[in-house]
Amino acid sequence: MITYEQCQALDHADPLASVRDLFDHPRPREGHRERIYLDANSVGAMPKAAPDRLLELMREGWSRNRRRSWADGDWLSAPTRLGDRIAPLIGANAGEVLVCDSTSINLFKLLAGALQLRPGRAVIVSEAGNFPTDLYIAQGLRDLLGGACELRLVPEGRDPADFVDQETAVLSLSLVDYRSSRRFDMARLTQAAHQAGALVLWDLSHAAGAIPIDLNATDADLAIGCTYKYLCGGPGSPAFLFTAQRHQQAMKPALTGWMGHAAQFDFETAYRPAPGIKRQLCGTPAVLANAALETALEIWSTVSLDAVHAKHAGLSALMIDLLDQRCPAVTLVSPRDYANQGGHIAVRHEGGAALVEALAQLGVICSHRAPDTVRFGLAPLTLRHVDIWHTVIRLEEVLTAQSWRTVELGAAT
Amino acid sequence: MITYEQCQALDHADPLASVRDLFDHPRPREGHRERIYLDANSVGAMPKAAPDRLLELMREGWSRNRRRSWADGDWLSAPTRLGDRIAPLIGANAGEVLVCDSTSINLFKLLAGALQLRPGRAVIVSEAGNFPTDLYIAQGLRDLLGGACELRLVPEGRDPADFVDQETAVLSLSLVDYRSSRRFDMARLTQAAHQAGALVLWDLSHAAGAIPIDLNATDADLAIGCTYKYLCGGPGSPAFLFTAQRHQQAMKPALTGWMGHAAQFDFETAYRPAPGIKRQLCGTPAVLANAALETALEIWSTVSLDAVHAKHAGLSALMIDLLDQRCPAVTLVSPRDYANQGGHIAVRHEGGAALVEALAQLGVICSHRAPDTVRFGLAPLTLRHVDIWHTVIRLEEVLTAQSWRTVELGAAT
Repeated sequence: MITYEQCQALDHADPLASVRDLFDHPRPREGHRERIYLDANSVGAMPKAAPDRLLELMREGWSRNRRRSWADGDWLSAPTRLGDRIAPLIGANAGEVLVCDSTSINLFKLLAGALQLRPGRAVIVSEAGNFPTDLYIAQGLRDLLGGACELRLVPEGRDPADFVDQETAVLSLSLVDYRSSRRFDMARLTQAAHQAGALVLWDLSHAAGAIPIDLNATDADLAIGCTYKYLCGGPGSPAFLFTAQRHQQAMKPALTGWMGHAAQFDFETAYRPAPGIKRQLCGTPAVLANAALETALEIWSTVSLDAVHAKHAGLSALMIDLLDQRCPAVTLVSPRDYANQGGHIAVRHEGGAALVEALAQLGVICSHRAPDTVRFGLAPLTLRHVDIWHTVIRLEEVLTAQSWRTVELGAAT
Repeated sequence: MITYEQCQALDHADPLASVRDLFDHPRPREGHRERIYLDANSVGAMPKAAPDRLLELMREGWSRNRRRSWADGDWLSAPTRLGDRIAPLIGANAGEVLVCDSTSINLFKLLAGALQLRPGRAVIVSEAGNFPTDLYIAQGLRDLLGGACELRLVPEGRDPADFVDQETAVLSLSLVDYRSSRRFDMARLTQAAHQAGALVLWDLSHAAGAIPIDLNATDADLAIGCTYKYLCGGPGSPAFLFTAQRHQQAMKPALTGWMGHAAQFDFETAYRPAPGIKRQLCGTPAVLANAALETALEIWSTVSLDAVHAKHAGLSALMIDLLDQRCPAVTLVSPRDYANQGGHIAVRHEGGAALVEALAQLGVICSHRAPDTVRFGLAPLTLRHVDIWHTVIRLEEVLTAQSWRTVELGAAT
């Protein structure tokens, strides 16, 4: 049996232990326990530097310098600057990643771009279990193009490689399933798509900032992802997009706003795309949100990614082992093999929503997906091994006392 | 000749004088004059409440409540709640306005929607002098639809009504020209479009928060606009879009993200648009930016719009009169008749960019557009009549002393 002392020892040996102190850990309200946040798959922790950075930006950049900040400051360069900071986290090079808009909008841009890069091929292959917005955006693009595009959905559990053929323009998948946390084999599926002459597009939302991702080593073409989960960019922070350098010049953007123009302040009548990744910009950057995200990415640029991934793997294994030992009544939904696992650990148990509420009353914040899945997001920069211990012990308490059966949904504060 | 005392008297009689105190007015740095900001056409003033609101949101909503804020808080309802606050400012009803994404992205949504509402009509009519992003987005949509759409540009100075015909799906114009501040006749052009069976789409970016706008009284169909100019929502704050209620159910969105789904948390495989304006939502809301914008819209909801428009008209007339009296060397670019005027006053003079720099060194912040146009954005909530006085007096100083000829561009801090 794993002991509390063993978890403490793992924390003492953790090379990332001090990184935790760069994030805010709110003191518990009176009479409440300290919270343990296992919801990095929804909203990551807040960098301690974020509030002061925003205050400074608001007082100096917004209120004092006003319009002069567009020229003097770094507001307009943020999309590429922040993109360059994300690049190493996903195995991309500088100049291949851009921070802008939402994950959904960026998916639209890159799906349209993929169809353009593969003329004569009309099929987008995705998975029926893909995150809904990924499916909806593809459906909307298909309908907008009115028959010039078809969406082919791989039934859950089947191998996407078997559905890619000579008609396929792009294989569009989430690397990690938002429910089960199953991870696809990026290298194998990218290769399968390429063998059929298709491109591959990865949604990295439930992966970036948790597991190793190497877009360029696997020869990936396109990717998108959100920054408010494991990357800790703040609620609703702008998303990112990746376009492999070899495709950048050939892709004419679909959403052709002035920020993606080759000479945005020349106010020309005709659109001319900027060189490189910048052409995928559309409207004015979200200045406040970019500043909050930047405080998080500054932390990411100081950590060893090998240490991050080793810690995430260790936290995952610890959680699975403790669940096996302490909570045999729950069924592990996530793959046992870490190579097939994403950012969170998912389990199944009767009354999943009530379980999540009962845990919240004990200070453990996790999330539920219908019908009975409970998700624990494992943030490697902020979680301690003892947090995993306390989480499983509290889950054990709740299950033993059957106290979740009496919990009122939505009551926990 | 208008006197300083007359300007003071106008301020004493100003019913909006106290509203100015709800905005932050940074104290000048040592050795500098107090700044006068005439750049509301670029970035409006900061509400005093904004920094504390953001801090509270970051500490409680983001850091303490994390994912639970999505359900408990008002993060997800912000797009419609803020839209309902903007509605009265543009003559719309509750349920007709949404805050989301950028002006460019929202234009794409509504142009695509207009083409869908007018099947068999393939032409988008716009003006060659429209704001560049409006032209670029239309060009991008046309290219994406590959021949199913044509963009027809009205030469500058010609009447757009003459270019709308039976092939026209939508007349897409900026109500106010970003350079000259010329205002179109919304009622007349909307009627002209309707007589040809076309829709009308107004970009209100250089108008909202300054001049009277009545979308529903003029029977307008669609509109977009930004919130960071006269509305004071903060740099890069989310944009708005308007769809007249009669069109909402018939428009199938082009950018079909999960936030616009009829049941966004049921995670269905097939896209089903939400009823009403909400279907035009796409990705996750920009939580931090929405909070800053909300502090501004709370101020807007307390003011008399009649007083706002009367004050804006008065500031505009005062500025033109003072320019006539004090600076005859500059040429008024904006229309003299207020009914044809937008949010800012534009003048022309040799060396426009250097003039703007010289004024900045005297604490007057305005903006330049090539080749020689100087723009003064007149924010009715924050500007005093004496500010207009000081601005013109300082411009007179600069012109008289010819001091702008020695100014180094980009040097003013």
